[in-house]
Amino acid sequence: MIKFPKPTVEQFFRTYAIHTFDVSADEERLVFSTNLDGKMNLWAMDLPDTYPYLFAHQNESCSFIKFDPKSRYVLAGFDKDGDENHHIYAIPYDGGIPQKIVSGEAEDKFFFTDLSDDGERIYYVTSAENPSFMNTRFRNLKNDSDTLLNIGEKSPTELAAVSEGEDAYVYIRSFANTYVIGFVKTGDETYNLTPDPEKVHVTSEPVFIDDKTIYFLTNFNSEYSYIAKFDLEKHAFSEVLSIENESIEQLKFNKKQNTLFLVTESGVSEVLYRYDLMSGELEQLSALVDIIYQLKVTEAGNLYMLGTSDKLPLNIFQSKDGSNWKQLTNNRVLGVDSDDMVEPDVVTYQSFDGMDIEALLYKPKPENDNGYTIFWPHGGPQAAQQKMFVSMFQCFLNRGYTIFAPNFRGSIGYGSSFVKLVEQDWGEGPRLDCVAGIEWLFENGITDRDKLFLVGGSYGGYMALLLHGRHPEYFKACVDIFGPSDLFTFVNSVPDHWKPIMERWLGNPERDRERFIQDSPVTYLNGMTKPMLVIQGAHDPRVVKEESDNIVAKLQEQGRDVDYLVLEDEGHGFSKKENEIKVYKSMLDFLEKHHF
Amino acid sequence: MIKFPKPTVEQFFRTYAIHTFDVSADEERLVFSTNLDGKMNLWAMDLPDTYPYLFAHQNESCSFIKFDPKSRYVLAGFDKDGDENHHIYAIPYDGGIPQKIVSGEAEDKFFFTDLSDDGERIYYVTSAENPSFMNTRFRNLKNDSDTLLNIGEKSPTELAAVSEGEDAYVYIRSFANTYVIGFVKTGDETYNLTPDPEKVHVTSEPVFIDDKTIYFLTNFNSEYSYIAKFDLEKHAFSEVLSIENESIEQLKFNKKQNTLFLVTESGVSEVLYRYDLMSGELEQLSALVDIIYQLKVTEAGNLYMLGTSDKLPLNIFQSKDGSNWKQLTNNRVLGVDSDDMVEPDVVTYQSFDGMDIEALLYKPKPENDNGYTIFWPHGGPQAAQQKMFVSMFQCFLNRGYTIFAPNFRGSIGYGSSFVKLVEQDWGEGPRLDCVAGIEWLFENGITDRDKLFLVGGSYGGYMALLLHGRHPEYFKACVDIFGPSDLFTFVNSVPDHWKPIMERWLGNPERDRERFIQDSPVTYLNGMTKPMLVIQGAHDPRVVKEESDNIVAKLQEQGRDVDYLVLEDEGHGFSKKENEIKVYKSMLDFLEKHHF
Repeated sequence: MIKFPKPTVEQFFRTYAIHTFDVSADEERLVFSTNLDGKMNLWAMDLPDTYPYLFAHQNESCSFIKFDPKSRYVLAGFDKDGDENHHIYAIPYDGGIPQKIVSGEAEDKFFFTDLSDDGERIYYVTSAENPSFMNTRFRNLKNDSDTLLNIGEKSPTELAAVSEGEDAYVYIRSFANTYVIGFVKTGDETYNLTPDPEKVHVTSEPVFIDDKTIYFLTNFNSEYSYIAKFDLEKHAFSEVLSIENESIEQLKFNKKQNTLFLVTESGVSEVLYRYDLMSGELEQLSALVDIIYQLKVTEAGNLYMLGTSDKLPLNIFQSKDGSNWKQLTNNRVLGVDSDDMVEPDVVTYQSFDGMDIEALLYKPKPENDNGYTIFWPHGGPQAAQQKMFVSMFQCFLNRGYTIFAPNFRGSIGYGSSFVKLVEQDWGEGPRLDCVAGIEWLFENGITDRDKLFLVGGSYGGYMALLLHGRHPEYFKACVDIFGPSDLFTFVNSVPDHWKPIMERWLGNPERDRERFIQDSPVTYLNGMTKPMLVIQGAHDPRVVKEESDNIVAKLQEQGRDVDYLVLEDEGHGFSKKENEIKVYKSMLDFLEKHHF
Repeated sequence: MIKFPKPTVEQFFRTYAIHTFDVSADEERLVFSTNLDGKMNLWAMDLPDTYPYLFAHQNESCSFIKFDPKSRYVLAGFDKDGDENHHIYAIPYDGGIPQKIVSGEAEDKFFFTDLSDDGERIYYVTSAENPSFMNTRFRNLKNDSDTLLNIGEKSPTELAAVSEGEDAYVYIRSFANTYVIGFVKTGDETYNLTPDPEKVHVTSEPVFIDDKTIYFLTNFNSEYSYIAKFDLEKHAFSEVLSIENESIEQLKFNKKQNTLFLVTESGVSEVLYRYDLMSGELEQLSALVDIIYQLKVTEAGNLYMLGTSDKLPLNIFQSKDGSNWKQLTNNRVLGVDSDDMVEPDVVTYQSFDGMDIEALLYKPKPENDNGYTIFWPHGGPQAAQQKMFVSMFQCFLNRGYTIFAPNFRGSIGYGSSFVKLVEQDWGEGPRLDCVAGIEWLFENGITDRDKLFLVGGSYGGYMALLLHGRHPEYFKACVDIFGPSDLFTFVNSVPDHWKPIMERWLGNPERDRERFIQDSPVTYLNGMTKPMLVIQGAHDPRVVKEESDNIVAKLQEQGRDVDYLVLEDEGHGFSKKENEIKVYKSMLDFLEKHHF
């Protein structure tokens, strides 16, 4: 009978993205942003029917979706060609072509914060007139007036919550990924949400429980974020709820039931909880997925969630009780069953200084195993390799590769001190964590020097270059995907709004000159003796093409074996399916070429 | 509050095509062919859930889908770049990349006919080794052998049905659209299904009710197709069921319930019936739609249907009883409600010779009415303008145009004599029917000479050119979409497999020289004085580009006002959404330019 070949590379990439969603007040319509039809557009389903229909045609990335509570329109944010300058659009309630509502110069940003309960006032944050620190304004749709609420200062400052009476506003000011303070303004008064804004900590997810009480998340005086409360009458901060060794990262409030829904982060996965504000009871819910990108709690108390697991691409789910979930979308790998995919083992190893490092170890099915291992330092670096579906991983596993992805120091999920360890130390501690991870692979017989490849993107590309330059003896070959190669040029080429945080994050090229030299991959050109494939998007605004051009040119001058793949129509990432497939086919071909 | 503009042209074209579908034996999976993601691919839904997922990625048009009864694979036919040379592919039961199963040279055709009940033998018809008349073969999947069953002769001859015991085969031989005979071969014996194959008639849809009885449709000795029976034991033909003034066009059999399901055609719409073979009871069912493209009856007796109505794009429906239907897909016009669309009036007028001509009259909503009318002769010509959703019509109606589409002589739906009236008379009778239709519009005050536009495609484009050349005084301006302009060149430029039927359909350029001259639009260049827009696909295999090039060049030589829009990457029709939108935007702009 008919024999079918193994799944092709492209099958693993025929999933699609789902970026965000919202549900109408009556829960009869769900609108979501997806590239189901090849480009990012809005699609809707009229529940309980789940067959999606095109809701808004824009062919651009969408930053948020918000239903008018009175069912007259839907708001959404779109940028242009991936420039990340989002403007606010309105779409008729039954779908159509988005109309610009809050907009201005193409190079300015207009970020949505809140829509009033009567659907008449849009609160937003904009770079217009204040590109470095951002202003907060609101648009009155009834009389088309636009009012300045707050002028950002010191650092980028964004409105994060509006009280029901629209007379108190919570702002968030970011100095770094690890240093974000919150304050509330009411009338002429301003109060900090936490007792000491000078102390480095993070504040997020403020919610007005009533006009006088703000709940929010913070890691003030703690390794992990917990729920805190600010009493607007007493101007008092207090802790509400912390969960041991878990960092609470998302907070949603249901007024009717007086409950909070929390998503916590712990190592490589997330947990969903319901917290009853009356009884103080905390209940862990079955989330069905390992990672929750977006959670929505409706007025009726129903839950909608955008989430993913190792073997399950991003999908939208619905639940009435937080335990029984219905999968509304059906985003899946073309023709590959979940049984044919791989869940990683979560392993821990000791680094050079005794610190525990957690890592994901993906082992191919025995019948696929080709004996080779890919060492994958993740991007960010203040991010983590978590238990989420990654097309590339499942594709490479199907081809027989083992994949090892360590959450080196600087990764999130292991407490705030751990995250800070990469700040002003990009190339030493995290690199040595990687080296220890490689030694652990050897010690445990998982791979050896003749069977190990090195692949990484963004910060992971930087780390791949650095590891290659300083430890070439470990690897057979190396793939760098848009990784910075020279910290001196990189620090000056990032987008403008990144520059305020570069100091704390990476350092100062004059003051830290010695460290910049020591931590820049270009310093170790002589070590980069193994075959390399460098991949770069021509329009990358975060890691500019020159970072790759330079290192490729220098290596080629020295006669090294370097392939260079430039994608003319891509930025930082691969937005177009056919490009994505081309890149990963090239990577597979490159790795295979260097098997022996 | 927010005011939204009228729907844009593009919104009406943001529907998608659904070409064909099949349902698995357990009715838990439905696979359909659609360009939901921009190109034609197969998508599936796992019923009762209707959220579709990508099932087979091919980016090509699909001619059929057939589930293996034993749930091991799915068969599908794909061509290449619209060349209409379909080959037979298999796809794993859970989806994947199609693999060629029955295939050969790129220029050959492999048309699927039947799959044995055990899923092991594929019966098919191919142009390989017999390009004019086609051979019938079967492929044994178990031992990969391929067997010749029948050599086509006299005219294109295709296998149409296989008995359950796979020892009797019904073939269909086509001499013209209006002359198709059927015969059955069993062992060395051959019997004609109808008493006289020399008599011009049509035979279609043969079904083996049991190994000795064939039911089929024919208009032998009748204006309308009826159900007939051929008894293989007695070699006897008999009539089974006819329906007055309706032509039975589709026939499906359910063995368990011993019932037939029929779709009849009557003027501009279709009707669905259930016919009980035991009791002889005929019951009209509510089909929910006006036009049924595809009907499937499952073993359990459930119905699946691909259908459309004036205001409803093609969708797939499901019913257990033939009366209550669930719409499984949700293909709709972006942001335009069915209330904002238009259903046509069905009107009748008398033509020059007293013959009744039926037409569809679409009146715009009063608030949209711009006072102008479009006269639309349909393509085919042996087709009809029926009550189906047409994006262009609804878009133009929304812009305020009245549309008048007559089913001139030669159209289907009005009996076989009426269809034959266009044969060897392309330019006289049908043209005078159009002229009578225009006069009727004037008499009834629907439009006048200063408000009438002429638009048509394919045969309708030919008719538009001819009407323009011979009756320019009626029109303000004319749009021709890939219409033949010269019958002498056209008759020789059609695809090879059309050539056998050209004689009966159009005539012989030598014998009918005078008529060819009289009926060719180029004969009337001097009359074509009104502004024209000509639209042509560069790769059109049916009406080649030279047909448009020639007339445009000749008119431009004479200084006429002719716009020419050539689509470099299209054939006979617009397969790409962005091209479609461009064409109809151009047409609207052209018409608007000539309002005064």
